[in-house]
Amino acid sequence: MSNPSILILPGDGIGPEVMDEVRKVIAWYGEKRDMAFDVSEDLVGGAAYDKHGTPLHDDTMARAMEVDAVLLGAVGGPKYDVLDFSVKPERGLLRLRKEMDLFSNLRPAQCFDALADFSSLKKEVVAGLDIMIVRELTSGIYFGEPRGIFKEGNERVGINTQRYTESEIARVARSAFELARLRSNRLCSMEKANVMESGILWRDVVTEIHAAEYPDVELSHMYADNGAMQLVRAPKQFDVIVTDNLFGDILSDAAAMLTGSLGMLPSASLGAPMENGRPKAMYEPVHGSAPDIAGQGKANPIACILSFAMALRYSFEAGEEAARLEAAIATVLANGARTADLLGPEGGTPISTGEMGDAIIAVL
Amino acid sequence: MSNPSILILPGDGIGPEVMDEVRKVIAWYGEKRDMAFDVSEDLVGGAAYDKHGTPLHDDTMARAMEVDAVLLGAVGGPKYDVLDFSVKPERGLLRLRKEMDLFSNLRPAQCFDALADFSSLKKEVVAGLDIMIVRELTSGIYFGEPRGIFKEGNERVGINTQRYTESEIARVARSAFELARLRSNRLCSMEKANVMESGILWRDVVTEIHAAEYPDVELSHMYADNGAMQLVRAPKQFDVIVTDNLFGDILSDAAAMLTGSLGMLPSASLGAPMENGRPKAMYEPVHGSAPDIAGQGKANPIACILSFAMALRYSFEAGEEAARLEAAIATVLANGARTADLLGPEGGTPISTGEMGDAIIAVL
Ligand SMILES: CC(C)[C@H](C(=O)O)[C@@H](O)C(=O)O
Ligand SMILES: CC(C)[C@H](C(=O)O)[C@@H](O)C(=O)O
Repeated sequence: MSNPSILILPGDGIGPEVMDEVRKVIAWYGEKRDMAFDVSEDLVGGAAYDKHGTPLHDDTMARAMEVDAVLLGAVGGPKYDVLDFSVKPERGLLRLRKEMDLFSNLRPAQCFDALADFSSLKKEVVAGLDIMIVRELTSGIYFGEPRGIFKEGNERVGINTQRYTESEIARVARSAFELARLRSNRLCSMEKANVMESGILWRDVVTEIHAAEYPDVELSHMYADNGAMQLVRAPKQFDVIVTDNLFGDILSDAAAMLTGSLGMLPSASLGAPMENGRPKAMYEPVHGSAPDIAGQGKANPIACILSFAMALRYSFEAGEEAARLEAAIATVLANGARTADLLGPEGGTPISTGEMGDAIIAVL
Repeated sequence: MSNPSILILPGDGIGPEVMDEVRKVIAWYGEKRDMAFDVSEDLVGGAAYDKHGTPLHDDTMARAMEVDAVLLGAVGGPKYDVLDFSVKPERGLLRLRKEMDLFSNLRPAQCFDALADFSSLKKEVVAGLDIMIVRELTSGIYFGEPRGIFKEGNERVGINTQRYTESEIARVARSAFELARLRSNRLCSMEKANVMESGILWRDVVTEIHAAEYPDVELSHMYADNGAMQLVRAPKQFDVIVTDNLFGDILSDAAAMLTGSLGMLPSASLGAPMENGRPKAMYEPVHGSAPDIAGQGKANPIACILSFAMALRYSFEAGEEAARLEAAIATVLANGARTADLLGPEGGTPISTGEMGDAIIAVL
């Protein structure tokens, strides 16, 4: 049997340098744990545009469809702001999500003990925080038609369409219910059913799936605006949250910021099972390309390494190895290692991207 | 000349009891400051549905179109959850916004010194916070067509449409630029121009209005997901924020919660000037109808009274009187008066809704 395959797409900004550290970790698993991966690499985002005039080459797309997991760094940068919408770096990312049909985006918001002081929220509000936001990732207003800027009389009109089918809602709901079962068995679904019909359908379908397939899971519903409030007020009331693409974008970013350390947060985007039983999957840090610090060895590689840990868990049936990697990171932080983004107002001496990677390997 | 006219719509839940306190304040202004108002009252939301089978009677709508200002309490409650979308309490509120064409929704998020400890955020992050979110209120996905739940093959599909015209964006942008000029001259506009064409048009129009009419105001743009993050991370970086209807709903609720005291936050919804020069206007607290505590004298009337202060400022050219009322509230809080929602974990003895109203009148 051939080795499991990984496609690395470092992308733009700090993407390449954080991915270098992930490569070290992958190599470690090959050498020390006898888990060899077949690793290939390619371009995405601005880097792909610079070379091919498109943020995702068709060959790269084809390769992404074949591998067991894609690891993505980050896309975008001010240099590409002037580009036309259709070739912006983000379109490369969105095409991957859409064509791989990665409908279930898992975004854990976890507060590491060693970093609880670092949040803008009071320590007691966030210490021990561990929630999982499941965001629908392939539909909704991100992809609905009609869309565009049109001329009406002598005015421009901007149009986007929020569109959800019953089956699109059902499959992401199932994935959230499954996760809830593995955690504390509670799921909160968020929409604006008081204002949007697509929200009514969302609520109805989630309720139906619950009754028919997951009656053992405790289900609640919340309007998304109240959800944003509750995430700020008392985030620990939540365990798993499921919501649509746009609300998920905003709520998961707010949740991420609760932890105080964006450089720490991974994500997994999962699709349907492939022939070998593994889900189509892409893993990426929640942080962006941070062009202001790119290439300076200042970036925190932990979010990207934790994304690889999610790959171990969700793609490579290696939950224990994932836990080992996560524990190593917690130890390194407890020992006081800090990249620049993890220094509080008290200051201190930061270590570099590479040093953080090495420290994690050393503990492993 | 006749007195300025006010239509009071107490609505549901705690709406009526907080509005009782506003009535006391209005009476005080009539007696002590020689500012008599012509006050009428009517039903909205569930209360209107119970009597008329509709959340807003046409006669009420007609009256709202005539008065100088509408004061609204709150709408909604679990009793009405089973109602059809078209007659839910919220539809009454949305109809008022739409038919009065109240396109500019001003939502201040202010942290009162006496209550800074009360936030889930660290005191230094929120003490002195004073930002103003300007939310577009009459368009976007709240009102765009097509909308509904349709059958496609044997599946249901939920559809809503985000639709913004150039002039809709321009008018709310102008109102935000004007406000920025009265404050610290900085405006941040939020959208998802990286994903939505309606966001691109939003950004373009705001940029054009800026260049042509408000080059003196410092303008920045931010993606709405990053906006949610930044509001949690460092809210004081903002002064005035302008955004669309849906993002405004979520971001203003997150911002409101930063202050730690939802029972304190007012809002103003303004439209075009009427014949007498005053804008069409509705004022309402940001909090909801809180059915769980309704009728028990536990509700905090301050948000609703501060909404009346906004009416003094924006509808009745009485900015100094508004400031007097706001100062009286700050004094009452500094003196230690607390309704139940304002008691921290340390506890204490709460005063009732009516006692809070009386305390404010006493200081006035
Ligand atoms: C980069 C952008 C297109 C993307 C999104 O809006 O989904 C990002 O914000 C995210 O959350 O992954
Ligand atoms: C009650 C509801 C329709 C309303 C909205 O979504 O606009 C509320 O959340 C608000 O923010 O005023």
